[in-house]
Amino acid sequence: MASPTRPRRTATLLIDCPDAKGLVATVSGFLYEHGANILHSDQHRDDEQGLFFMRNEWDLADFALDEPGFAAAFTPIAGRFNMNWRVKYSSKPLKVAMFASKQLHCLSDLLERFSTQDLPGELRVVVSNHDDAGPLTRFHGVRFERIPVAQQDKAEAERRQMEILHEEGVDLVILARYMQVLSGDFVARFPGRIINVHHSFLPAFSGAKPYHAAHQRGVKLIGATSHYVTEVLDDGPIIEQDVVRVSHRDSVAGMVRQGRDVERVVLSRAVRWHLEHRILAYSNKTVIFD
Amino acid sequence: MASPTRPRRTATLLIDCPDAKGLVATVSGFLYEHGANILHSDQHRDDEQGLFFMRNEWDLADFALDEPGFAAAFTPIAGRFNMNWRVKYSSKPLKVAMFASKQLHCLSDLLERFSTQDLPGELRVVVSNHDDAGPLTRFHGVRFERIPVAQQDKAEAERRQMEILHEEGVDLVILARYMQVLSGDFVARFPGRIINVHHSFLPAFSGAKPYHAAHQRGVKLIGATSHYVTEVLDDGPIIEQDVVRVSHRDSVAGMVRQGRDVERVVLSRAVRWHLEHRILAYSNKTVIFD
Amino acid sequence: MASPTRPRRTATLLIDCPDAKGLVATVSGFLYEHGANILHSDQHRDDEQGLFFMRNEWDLADFALDEPGFAAAFTPIAGRFNMNWRVKYSSKPLKVAMFASKQLHCLSDLLERFSTQDLPGELRVVVSNHDDAGPLTRFHGVRFERIPVAQQDKAEAERRQMEILHEEGVDLVILARYMQVLSGDFVARFPGRIINVHHSFLPAFSGAKPYHAAHQRGVKLIGATSHYVTEVLDDGPIIEQDVVRVSHRDSVAGMVRQGRDVERVVLSRAVRWHLEHRILAYSNKTVIFD
Amino acid sequence: MASPTRPRRTATLLIDCPDAKGLVATVSGFLYEHGANILHSDQHRDDEQGLFFMRNEWDLADFALDEPGFAAAFTPIAGRFNMNWRVKYSSKPLKVAMFASKQLHCLSDLLERFSTQDLPGELRVVVSNHDDAGPLTRFHGVRFERIPVAQQDKAEAERRQMEILHEEGVDLVILARYMQVLSGDFVARFPGRIINVHHSFLPAFSGAKPYHAAHQRGVKLIGATSHYVTEVLDDGPIIEQDVVRVSHRDSVAGMVRQGRDVERVVLSRAVRWHLEHRILAYSNKTVIFD
Repeated sequence: MASPTRPRRTATLLIDCPDAKGLVATVSGFLYEHGANILHSDQHRDDEQGLFFMRNEWDLADFALDEPGFAAAFTPIAGRFNMNWRVKYSSKPLKVAMFASKQLHCLSDLLERFSTQDLPGELRVVVSNHDDAGPLTRFHGVRFERIPVAQQDKAEAERRQMEILHEEGVDLVILARYMQVLSGDFVARFPGRIINVHHSFLPAFSGAKPYHAAHQRGVKLIGATSHYVTEVLDDGPIIEQDVVRVSHRDSVAGMVRQGRDVERVVLSRAVRWHLEHRILAYSNKTVIFD
Repeated sequence: MASPTRPRRTATLLIDCPDAKGLVATVSGFLYEHGANILHSDQHRDDEQGLFFMRNEWDLADFALDEPGFAAAFTPIAGRFNMNWRVKYSSKPLKVAMFASKQLHCLSDLLERFSTQDLPGELRVVVSNHDDAGPLTRFHGVRFERIPVAQQDKAEAERRQMEILHEEGVDLVILARYMQVLSGDFVARFPGRIINVHHSFLPAFSGAKPYHAAHQRGVKLIGATSHYVTEVLDDGPIIEQDVVRVSHRDSVAGMVRQGRDVERVVLSRAVRWHLEHRILAYSNKTVIFD
Repeated sequence: MASPTRPRRTATLLIDCPDAKGLVATVSGFLYEHGANILHSDQHRDDEQGLFFMRNEWDLADFALDEPGFAAAFTPIAGRFNMNWRVKYSSKPLKVAMFASKQLHCLSDLLERFSTQDLPGELRVVVSNHDDAGPLTRFHGVRFERIPVAQQDKAEAERRQMEILHEEGVDLVILARYMQVLSGDFVARFPGRIINVHHSFLPAFSGAKPYHAAHQRGVKLIGATSHYVTEVLDDGPIIEQDVVRVSHRDSVAGMVRQGRDVERVVLSRAVRWHLEHRILAYSNKTVIFD
Repeated sequence: MASPTRPRRTATLLIDCPDAKGLVATVSGFLYEHGANILHSDQHRDDEQGLFFMRNEWDLADFALDEPGFAAAFTPIAGRFNMNWRVKYSSKPLKVAMFASKQLHCLSDLLERFSTQDLPGELRVVVSNHDDAGPLTRFHGVRFERIPVAQQDKAEAERRQMEILHEEGVDLVILARYMQVLSGDFVARFPGRIINVHHSFLPAFSGAKPYHAAHQRGVKLIGATSHYVTEVLDDGPIIEQDVVRVSHRDSVAGMVRQGRDVERVVLSRAVRWHLEHRILAYSNKTVIFD
C-alpha cells in the first residue's frame, strides 16, 4: 500500500505542561520567528488540574528548521515551561498494524479507507488469530499474518506479534474487533498507541456481550466507544463515542447489526485523529484538537 | 388548569399476554364487531419470552360500548388468552402530580406544556420540599404544597404527600428533578405510575453526581434517562433516553447546563407517552407504541 | 455470491388501499384461518388521504398456502377492499444490481454487507462507467460489467444496461454514487425499484456539488438522503436521511469525507428495508415498517 | 431582572482580518505583556478567502488595562494588521429584547433561562403584537409592551419598537417565534444583532409553513435553525441547527410539536453564544468559538 500523497508538507507540534502565563505568546513567537505559516492552532486549559495543552500545525514551505533543528531550538523553551512535547513532520506518516478476528466489518472499512488514502498512515500488516481476514487483506496488497492464540499460552502469540510489529516499525496498533485480551506487558510496550473499539457506550456495559446486556436492560440507545488500551480492560482514555436509537422491536441480533455501523464510524474517527496528531491523553481522558 | 380539549373522543386498549395464534384476529374482530373505527393499532412480540403486546386506539363516534359495557364484553376474550388489559376513554384524562426541589428547569418546562394543553393530562398539584417552585406553580393556577423532608423522619413527609395525592385522585407522579429518594413503601403504592428523570445515560453513572462522574471518566456524550421508579434506585424500566455531544472543553458546569436540555426533552416525552397510554412495562423494560 | 441462509422461512404481505372499517380484522382473520404464525404486523393510516397500509410477516411452518394458493385465496378479499397488494416468500430473495462510478465507498460497504449475508438479497452484477470498481467486485465473486456512457449517446449504454439487468433477472437497482443521470425511459421500467443516495439532506442542496453548496451556505449539519428514483432528479420518495455535525473548521473536503460516512449508512438502511419488504411508497412519500 | 452574578471578571477580544504571519504571536504577546491570564484562546483561518479570526478570553484580575486603555494600546496593532476588532468586559452584560407573538414556547424557555441567570445577559423588555405573552413576562418581572402591527402600516409599529429598544439601550433582539417580518430599514439598524429561529432545517423549507412542506415532502428528519436576520428572509448567517427524527406516523401537528423542542434548543444556544461573544459572522456564515 502506497503512502498517502498529501497536498502540502506540514509539521505538527503537540505540547502539554503546567499552565503558566505567556505560553501561547512564547510558542507562537517561536514559530513565527522561524518562518512558520500556521494553519491550525488550538489550546486547552484544564482549570481544575492547572494544565495547558496546545497543538500547532504549520506549512513547512518557509520554515527554517528540520526535525533535529527543531529539537535543538525548542528544547530550551520546553525546559523553561516543563513541557512534554513532540513534533511530527508529515513526510513521515505513521506506520500502522491492525489486529482482527472473525468479525471483519471494521477491518473491511479501514482497509478501504487506507487503500483510498482517506486515512493518512501506512498500513503495514494485518494480524489475526483466524484466517478469515486473509483474502481481503491480501487483495489490498497488505501483509497478512495469522497468529493463533492458544488459551494456555498467550505469551508465545504475543512474542510473535511483537516481532512482526518490530519488523514493520509499527507506531500504532488498531484493534478492529480483535477478540483477544492483550497482556499488561504487551500494552505497556505501546503506551497510548493501541486503539480499541468497544461495542457499547462506555462505561455502560463494559466486558463481554454488551449488546446482550443492553437488550436485557432495555436501553433506548446503543453505542460504541473507541479508546486507548490500558492495563484495565475497557477503561482507557475515551477517544470517540456515538450512539444509535433502538426500540423494543430490536432483538439482540438487530442491535448487533446496527451497532456495527456505529463501531465503524467511531473507530475510523479515532484512527484519523491519532494519525493526524490531534489527540493528547492525560488523566485517563483525551483532548481532541479537531 | 383546565382539562385539555381534544379534537375527538377515543378509547385506548392495552393488552399483554402469552403469545398465541389468532390474537390480532380476535381482538380486531371484537373491535370491528362493536363499531370501532380504529385509528392506531400496534403489536409487538417478544420472541424470547413468548409474550404478545398490543395497543389499539379507536374513534368512539360509532362505538357501541361504554366502559362498563366494554369490560363485560371483553372479559371472556381476555380470559381465553390469559390477558392483562386496560381500556382508557379519553374523556377521563389522567390526573398528575409533580414533585420538585430547587432545580426548576424540568418543572418549568412541564408547567408550560400542561398549561398550553400540549400534554393531555390534568396537572392537579406540585409538591416540593422547598419554596422555590411555589410562585411559578401558582402563576399557572396549580395547587402548590410545600412538604419539608426531615432526614430523620421521611415517613411523616411521605404520609402527608400520599394524603395530597389521595385528595387529588392522582394517577401519575412525575419526579421533576426531585432530590429526595422515595421509600419502597411509597413506590409500591404507585407501581408503574411514578416517572423520574435521571441526569445520565443509564446504566452509566447511576447514583449521585452523574455529571461529575461523566467529566471524570472523559465521556464524549452525556445523556439523560426517564424511567419508571422501582424500589432499586435508578434501576426501573427505561422509557426514553437521549444524549448530547460534549468535549474536553466542557467543564462540569457546562455539562450540567447542556444536560438540562436533554433532561427536559426525555422527561416530557416519557410523560406524554404515559398520558397517551403508549407504554407497556414488563421484565424491567418498556414497549413504547409511538 | 451465495444466497443468504435465513433461520426460518417466512412470507410478507404488503397492502395499501382506501381506509375502511374491518380491514385489520379481515386480513388477520384470513391469515389465522390458514395457519399463519404472525411474527410482525404493522398498520398505518393516512388520515388526510383516507388511505390504509399494512405489512404482515409470518412463519411459513404451519401455513397452508403456497404463493399461487395465496393469490387464489386472497384475491376476493383484495377485490372487496380495492387493495394493492403483494406477497413475498423468503425462499425467493430479491436479485440486485449495483451501479457505481469512481467513488467506491458505498459500493465497497455494500459489497461487504452482501458477501457476509448481512443483507438478505442476491447481488448479481455491478455495472460501472469506469474500471475502478472491477477488482473489488470480482474479488467478492460478483459479475462486473463496464459500460462506458458517451455523453452524446446515453441510449446505447442504457440499452446494454437493461440487457444485463434482464439477463440477471434483477429486481432492484442500487445507485451507489453512480454519477450518470438515468433517462426517464430507464426509470419508467423500474418504478419503485431504483434506490439512489444523494449527498445532501434533501430537499436542501439538490443537484450537483451539494457539499460545496452546503459549505457556501454555512450550514451546521450536513446530511445524506436515500430515495427511490423518479423522472424528476433528486425528487423521488425519501426512504432514509441522516446528518452529521460540521463547523466552520470543516473545509469542503472535510465535509465530503464526513458525508461519506452518512451516505454509507443511509443507503445501506434503504437497501435493507427494500429487501425486507418494509417500504410502501405513495404520494411521493414512503411508509417504512421497521 | 437582576444582572447575572459571574464567578470572575473577564474580558473577551474578537478579531477578524486578512491572514498574515505572526498574528497569534503578536496578539498573545500583547495580552501577556499587559498581564492577561488567558482562559480561552481560539483561532480560525479561512483558507479560501485568506481570512483570520481570533477570540481571546482572559481573567481581568491582573490585567493592566481598562476598556479605554485597551483601545488606546491595541489600536496600533489593529491598524498594522487591518483588523476588525471589539473587546467586551464582562462587567457590562448585553441588554436584550425579545419579540414574540402567540406561540410562547421559545419565549417561556428563554424567560426561565434569563431569570435563573443561566444566560449571561440582561433581559430588559418583551415586545409582542399580541397580549398572550404579557402575564408570564410580568411574572418574571420584565417589562412587557404590546405593539399591534397593522398590515397597512407596519412603519408605525416599527417606529414604536425602535423607541423602546432605544429607551432600554438594547444590544440584542431575539425573535422568539415572532410572526411579523421586519423591514429592511429596521434590520439595517441592528446589523448582526437580531437573532431569529426558523422552524426548518434551512435552506430547506424557508418561508411560511415549513412543517406542512416537510410533511408533504416526506422527509425523515425535521429541524430548526437559528440565524442572524438580514434583509433577505430566512437567508442570514446560520448560527445553529439541529434535527429530530420523524416518520410516516407523524402528522403535521406531531411535527409541529416535536419541532418545538428543537426550536427551543437551537435558539437558546444561539443566544448564549452571542451573549458570550463567541460568534463572528462573515460572508453570510458564522464562526462559532465554543
